[in-house]
Amino acid sequence: MQIINGKALAATLTEQIKNQVQAVVLQGKRKPCLAVVLIEGDSASAIYVANKQKACEKALIDSISIYKPASITQADLETIIQNLNNDKNVDGILVQLPLPRHIDKDKIINLINPAKDVDGFCTQNTGKLFENYKTNDMLFNSLSPCTPKGCIYCLLNAFEREGLSTDGKFLGGKSVCILGSSNIVGRPLANMCITLGATVSVCNSTTKNISFYTKNADIIIAAVGRAELVNGDMLKSGAIVIDVGINRVEGSNKIVGDVNFESISEVASYATPVPGGVGPLTIAFLLQNTLFAYLKTLH
Amino acid sequence: MQIINGKALAATLTEQIKNQVQAVVLQGKRKPCLAVVLIEGDSASAIYVANKQKACEKALIDSISIYKPASITQADLETIIQNLNNDKNVDGILVQLPLPRHIDKDKIINLINPAKDVDGFCTQNTGKLFENYKTNDMLFNSLSPCTPKGCIYCLLNAFEREGLSTDGKFLGGKSVCILGSSNIVGRPLANMCITLGATVSVCNSTTKNISFYTKNADIIIAAVGRAELVNGDMLKSGAIVIDVGINRVEGSNKIVGDVNFESISEVASYATPVPGGVGPLTIAFLLQNTLFAYLKTLH
Repeated sequence: MQIINGKALAATLTEQIKNQVQAVVLQGKRKPCLAVVLIEGDSASAIYVANKQKACEKALIDSISIYKPASITQADLETIIQNLNNDKNVDGILVQLPLPRHIDKDKIINLINPAKDVDGFCTQNTGKLFENYKTNDMLFNSLSPCTPKGCIYCLLNAFEREGLSTDGKFLGGKSVCILGSSNIVGRPLANMCITLGATVSVCNSTTKNISFYTKNADIIIAAVGRAELVNGDMLKSGAIVIDVGINRVEGSNKIVGDVNFESISEVASYATPVPGGVGPLTIAFLLQNTLFAYLKTLH
Repeated sequence: MQIINGKALAATLTEQIKNQVQAVVLQGKRKPCLAVVLIEGDSASAIYVANKQKACEKALIDSISIYKPASITQADLETIIQNLNNDKNVDGILVQLPLPRHIDKDKIINLINPAKDVDGFCTQNTGKLFENYKTNDMLFNSLSPCTPKGCIYCLLNAFEREGLSTDGKFLGGKSVCILGSSNIVGRPLANMCITLGATVSVCNSTTKNISFYTKNADIIIAAVGRAELVNGDMLKSGAIVIDVGINRVEGSNKIVGDVNFESISEVASYATPVPGGVGPLTIAFLLQNTLFAYLKTLH
């Protein structure tokens, strides 16, 4: 089994983004700017936000942080979004999820100007998942969600290393099994894979006999948040396995994915590790989305 | 095998829509109005449009027809759409597809005010397919595409006749195989089935071994436009089969679906005939979408 090194891919992508930013800044333009809104309450969120800001620095993207207590009102949060929408120096707006229960999440997300919605979660950007994108445009010229983009990028890497085409509907004839149907990963990813020509099966927690689907799949993408759910017995030989899971092992700081990495190592052809797989690429595509939103403002 | 009588279901639904229109008109309001734009060039389109207008009459919905020659310019067609958007007496706008090649179809569809987009094809309405709708709201309180709605309604009928629940994620634990991944039927339908809890497989013309998917499926929905592609050997016993296909038999006026109806009759539990299945329900849901758009204007 060969490793898809998401960390290295993300570093290269971030370097490319930095170079693009540098080129524009050298022409006398301002730097791109990402605004991150973090409502207190979820301990993991603060770490995620810190990681995103560190990544911005590497790509020469300015970042603004707006931290607010969990007691913030819907109206106050809406005002924050509107101000960021109106701020010509802000290119991307990211509201870190989850939000406190008393906040109407869908309303907040859909208040973000779609042109600044770098998470790609608003209705207008979700609808664009139905567009007949070419691979390159899907990844680099759209505001689609970052984690699904990272997954597709991992597939590109495996296909390129195999000497296979990554143009056009390059997943034509391939069967993709997606474990998980969330609006953040599984569902947008399913739509992207359909656009790229794949036969797509989307499983969820009610699916009977998951192995039926995984064993037939050329590509398995696990995004269910269940530690090491996928093992080698569930795969067909030569499958590509993309692991989106981030599960903390109880009583330790160890992180494991949705895939039992050791168990699949004799069966899969390519796989992403956790950590160091899809995670860093999610952040790199947040930078890419911010760059895309920024470049649009220059035209 | 029991028949899902789409024609009868559509007649009842149309009657219910008429009753709702009548109740509002009795309060002194104007009738709902659907505007249909037909660009000459496709011979089947004229028949479809005529059928839609006949259905409008039955439901007491006014209809306006705008017929234009195939030589119409993009700018002129855009002006027509904008005028209909601005017309307070028009609730629904339907641009009959296909459009001539020189017309930018996506631009025209996205020019339609999403609140009047009764076909449900614009980006804003496509994005709403990701909403966590309850069954009833998905069908009756959204501007989602009409044919997929008709398919879901057929499933409801089969489930109700079996005494099964149709509330909530009523397709949970069920495997659905969709043949066809078009933006008009297969893809929106896949998203609806995911919302309703199903495990969904979407096949296309590049899928290897379609029978692998159909044989495992509790529900098969065929929307590929290939005459009698699905036969009894491809099904598991007791499957529900929904046939979206409308294929003209060469050299005759006979219409057949994507399913070989006779062949599946000893294997399937429920199936829709062609004609008289999904087709009439597609039109009924166009009326329903128009009613929904109209009722929204009263609030």
